[in-house]
Amino acid sequence: MWPDRRILDLFGIELPIVLAPMAGASGAELAIAVGEAGGLGSLPCAMLSPDQIRNEIGVIRQRTARPLNLNFFAHKSPPADPDREAGWKKRLQPYYAEYGIDPATIPSGPGRNPFDEAACAIVEEHRPEIVSFHFGLPEEALLDRVRRTGAKIIASATTVAEARWLESAGCDVIIAQGAEAGGHRGIFLEEDVATQPGTFALVPQVVDAVSVPVIAAGGIADARGLAAAFMFGASAVQIGTAYLKCPESLITPIHRAALSQARDDRTVLTNVFTGRPARGLMNRFVRETGPISADAPAFPLPTSAAGPLRKAAEAAGSSDFSPLWAGQAAPLAKPMPAAELTRGLAREAQALLSKAAGA
Amino acid sequence: MWPDRRILDLFGIELPIVLAPMAGASGAELAIAVGEAGGLGSLPCAMLSPDQIRNEIGVIRQRTARPLNLNFFAHKSPPADPDREAGWKKRLQPYYAEYGIDPATIPSGPGRNPFDEAACAIVEEHRPEIVSFHFGLPEEALLDRVRRTGAKIIASATTVAEARWLESAGCDVIIAQGAEAGGHRGIFLEEDVATQPGTFALVPQVVDAVSVPVIAAGGIADARGLAAAFMFGASAVQIGTAYLKCPESLITPIHRAALSQARDDRTVLTNVFTGRPARGLMNRFVRETGPISADAPAFPLPTSAAGPLRKAAEAAGSSDFSPLWAGQAAPLAKPMPAAELTRGLAREAQALLSKAAGA
Repeated sequence: MWPDRRILDLFGIELPIVLAPMAGASGAELAIAVGEAGGLGSLPCAMLSPDQIRNEIGVIRQRTARPLNLNFFAHKSPPADPDREAGWKKRLQPYYAEYGIDPATIPSGPGRNPFDEAACAIVEEHRPEIVSFHFGLPEEALLDRVRRTGAKIIASATTVAEARWLESAGCDVIIAQGAEAGGHRGIFLEEDVATQPGTFALVPQVVDAVSVPVIAAGGIADARGLAAAFMFGASAVQIGTAYLKCPESLITPIHRAALSQARDDRTVLTNVFTGRPARGLMNRFVRETGPISADAPAFPLPTSAAGPLRKAAEAAGSSDFSPLWAGQAAPLAKPMPAAELTRGLAREAQALLSKAAGA
Repeated sequence: MWPDRRILDLFGIELPIVLAPMAGASGAELAIAVGEAGGLGSLPCAMLSPDQIRNEIGVIRQRTARPLNLNFFAHKSPPADPDREAGWKKRLQPYYAEYGIDPATIPSGPGRNPFDEAACAIVEEHRPEIVSFHFGLPEEALLDRVRRTGAKIIASATTVAEARWLESAGCDVIIAQGAEAGGHRGIFLEEDVATQPGTFALVPQVVDAVSVPVIAAGGIADARGLAAAFMFGASAVQIGTAYLKCPESLITPIHRAALSQARDDRTVLTNVFTGRPARGLMNRFVRETGPISADAPAFPLPTSAAGPLRKAAEAAGSSDFSPLWAGQAAPLAKPMPAAELTRGLAREAQALLSKAAGA
């Protein structure tokens, strides 16, 4: 049925489609729907407390017996940098003034949790079939504990060098995340986003460089991308933005409205929301302070500075300060329930592959 | 034999492979080899005088009866801007000093010719089967004259908006040039390269947006990319960087050596060589003055300022100041004669497509 069954057999799933874990935008409902449809459901844990993670896993395990992917960020928490944070707040002062926000009331501190002791204990307790990491991998002792649970370990590479690094570190599967992808780049070996390869160039080079199966990600939002990924030698695809449009996603009505107007040429990589480059739709905040600003504090410190602006602007019905994460293929996806999207992608991709030989 | 025959029938060629016209890097030999192998041979005219164009066409027509694509730039020549040119030379002063170059001896003036009366007369005289344009299209009166010769007219789009614009202007075929592509971006409706979509996202969206056949370009350097392009609904591919590695290309030994060391994550879009964004391998000049500099004069004025530095550095065996044009898929291509490359790409892509269908 599929040109490559390695991921299907390794994960125990029916369809070569992985739901991209999208912190803050996807939870149990999307994971359940995609899993039940035959793909791999993923739960992003980076913005959840340990209790929230346990609750979400509980809901998922109660409603589906399909394999589950728990996703974590693997960044190092940066040292506090009060000067830089203060400088960034000063840079944003005109916006605070515009919305009547007192910067002194804004709490500082991180807004995204790296994989740590508490997260590892959850993995050991709940034994997800797959554990995926973004921004590299956690320290070896923690990774070993994950491995000992029997979980398959996967992580994102944005370059061939990162793919090789992840394979050496023992990843069972590598996600080749092309520059088209929405949300945070998994980039971890360097910082320059100007040299990041697109999916068309990255996937075949990663396939050539590693011996583990490769999941293609970035710019895939319909069946054509899924079929094309197999031509490059990928064993599955990871899809994010298309699932954001599903009713099961947790995005705000403002984000949903912006996605419905998305264009191929109106997304950009920006670090002004979180300190790490992530792709989203261009808006006022990104245009005026970025898209890439050398003044933004290290990930994830800037999240607290932008938060009140987003809240105030959204209360006024504006998307000017919202992180409108989206990949470059956003316009290709139609809003529909996630199970229907998953099955439709698979069915249409198989039809394309069958037709491939032509007349 | 192929899933889509529209381009094959329209151009009268056997294989869905267009040799990318690469000004300064490809000439009659590559065009002849690719054309004779069954693809579409292209002659880039932007850096040739009218006499040189006539000579090259003469050589090609003498040695092959296959269809020929003449390629031209369609930019507007910028007004002279002595202040900005002087500022740019001042910016480069430390490099001139390093190489003992007297900036006063550097001639100014354009280094790339736009399609004009003289070029149009050549088209009318030699009647190439296909005429392609980069940077938009020439003024309507000239375009009408080209159309009246019976030539099929094709042009590059880097966004869906550009594709729609080109279709409205009467293009017979549109090249969807993803961000992975080496050399100059065809971008003409705007200037921001940060929002340029990758091939994976661009091609299906262009296919959906226009009714004319689409040629996929950018990141395609082996048979996998050719097979994948058909999955997206493209009718052919345009390939550049892979042909640079052929013995028939006109690149310097320094460029050839750099290409053999290319990596997926070591190219960047830069405007410091010509004033327009073009993708090439990172080197000292690009790193230190760009990659995108707001100080660079308008295309093609900076070419004269960088020229003497390139010449001096290359004489010393250094690639520090050379424009090392390359796409992100450069590592996928192996050096071999162009006819062999063309036939191999087609044969292997057909095998991939057949295998996909049979699975």
